[in-house]
Amino acid sequence: MSEATASTGIQLLALHGAPEIQPGDDLTRLIIESVAASGVVLESGDVLVVTQKVVSKAEGRLVDLATVEPSDLAQRFADRWKKDPRHVEVVLRESVRLVRMDRGIIISETRHGFVCANAGVDASNVAGDVACLLPLDPDGSAASLRAALMRRLGIDLAVIISDSFGRPWRNGITNVAIGVAGLAPLTDYRGQPDDFGRVMQVSVLAVADELASAAELISGKINRCPFVVVRGYPYERRDGRAAELVMDSNTDMFR
Amino acid sequence: MSEATASTGIQLLALHGAPEIQPGDDLTRLIIESVAASGVVLESGDVLVVTQKVVSKAEGRLVDLATVEPSDLAQRFADRWKKDPRHVEVVLRESVRLVRMDRGIIISETRHGFVCANAGVDASNVAGDVACLLPLDPDGSAASLRAALMRRLGIDLAVIISDSFGRPWRNGITNVAIGVAGLAPLTDYRGQPDDFGRVMQVSVLAVADELASAAELISGKINRCPFVVVRGYPYERRDGRAAELVMDSNTDMFR
Repeated sequence: MSEATASTGIQLLALHGAPEIQPGDDLTRLIIESVAASGVVLESGDVLVVTQKVVSKAEGRLVDLATVEPSDLAQRFADRWKKDPRHVEVVLRESVRLVRMDRGIIISETRHGFVCANAGVDASNVAGDVACLLPLDPDGSAASLRAALMRRLGIDLAVIISDSFGRPWRNGITNVAIGVAGLAPLTDYRGQPDDFGRVMQVSVLAVADELASAAELISGKINRCPFVVVRGYPYERRDGRAAELVMDSNTDMFR
Repeated sequence: MSEATASTGIQLLALHGAPEIQPGDDLTRLIIESVAASGVVLESGDVLVVTQKVVSKAEGRLVDLATVEPSDLAQRFADRWKKDPRHVEVVLRESVRLVRMDRGIIISETRHGFVCANAGVDASNVAGDVACLLPLDPDGSAASLRAALMRRLGIDLAVIISDSFGRPWRNGITNVAIGVAGLAPLTDYRGQPDDFGRVMQVSVLAVADELASAAELISGKINRCPFVVVRGYPYERRDGRAAELVMDSNTDMFR
């Protein structure tokens, strides 16, 4: 019961006032300004969830499509499915393995090991004919952001960089963690007894993904709210990485 | 900005004091008692997330494994992967289609159209040699629960029945919605302009799954907390069903 009481009352807090992010922007400073503008005081134990899009923009992970020469494959696929061949080309360049390429949809593996649509390349909420790529090293981005925030604020918090991925078999996208710093992304209940003393078999929870999904309920797709604070979640503090969420190819049944 | 302000401050509230659920239990009464024991007052606009396990138990969706005669296929698969053949048999009986059956793992489609491990059949947190099946009609269960709560409490709330599913390519399980009543499980931003006036292409969010994941952060696997209230999320009120989350076989690239 004490454990349940400890977890009572998680809050999801929106940070407002974020400007449109430009390449080279200091995200740490913008977050601290958003915190102040929102009347929120960050506390040790908070989880700050930041959308991938602002991290990518600040890191300049943008490609001007006017500079992209589509390959023959990109051109043929685009012609067949009425896509922008330059966008298809960028997706192919960001992929290390194609899982499915059909019906105008490309599901591929990124250099990080994530399997997602279009290798995470996105054109929405980007000005002009520009494609936005995933951060080169989202775990590193999360760690840098966390270190800078801890240094400036003097508190111990965790950082998650989130992106919205589709899934097989279910309609709609949900937010997942593509970068993690300061928390264990997986909570492993294997080997612990359940309420009946039976040892649980498969109970590894992807809490970083659940935190990212929870934050999406606030950040939404249209509200310009790229920063969300999750307060009151008793996460395991350690040097975790989103890379731990990537399934090993040996156990992947859907290559 | 007004939209962002409206969504500020979602709360996740645990309801304590739920007893071990028995077949035939009146979940509505138990929820109202939990609400009272937790010092929470349910409000119109709340989303009540209930774990599948308690719904299944209350509905008597339990199978005594001592009564199960394994088929030859179940016996062979169990022998090969050191599983309980009676449990494998129950999984096969609950499946309408096998998606993968290898390495001791069965991924199959249930009669509801959900694709998940073991057809949702679970042995953890169940007393004795008993397997717990998914509710026959989780959307119906959610609708009944919602109607009874609205009648007794005089408020308009939404109900989600959640279960934890694995996913391809990512480690760990996350909670998703298998039953929905009173809210739109998908929020469709297609056709709406993004911050740059560009019409968004793929922005259908599975908010019911995100609500289920958020609730899992409180209910956990071990704390006996099967009821969680999500407060402050401005969901679209309508007669939604979790069946809307099931991908049509024509668009499913991972049959």
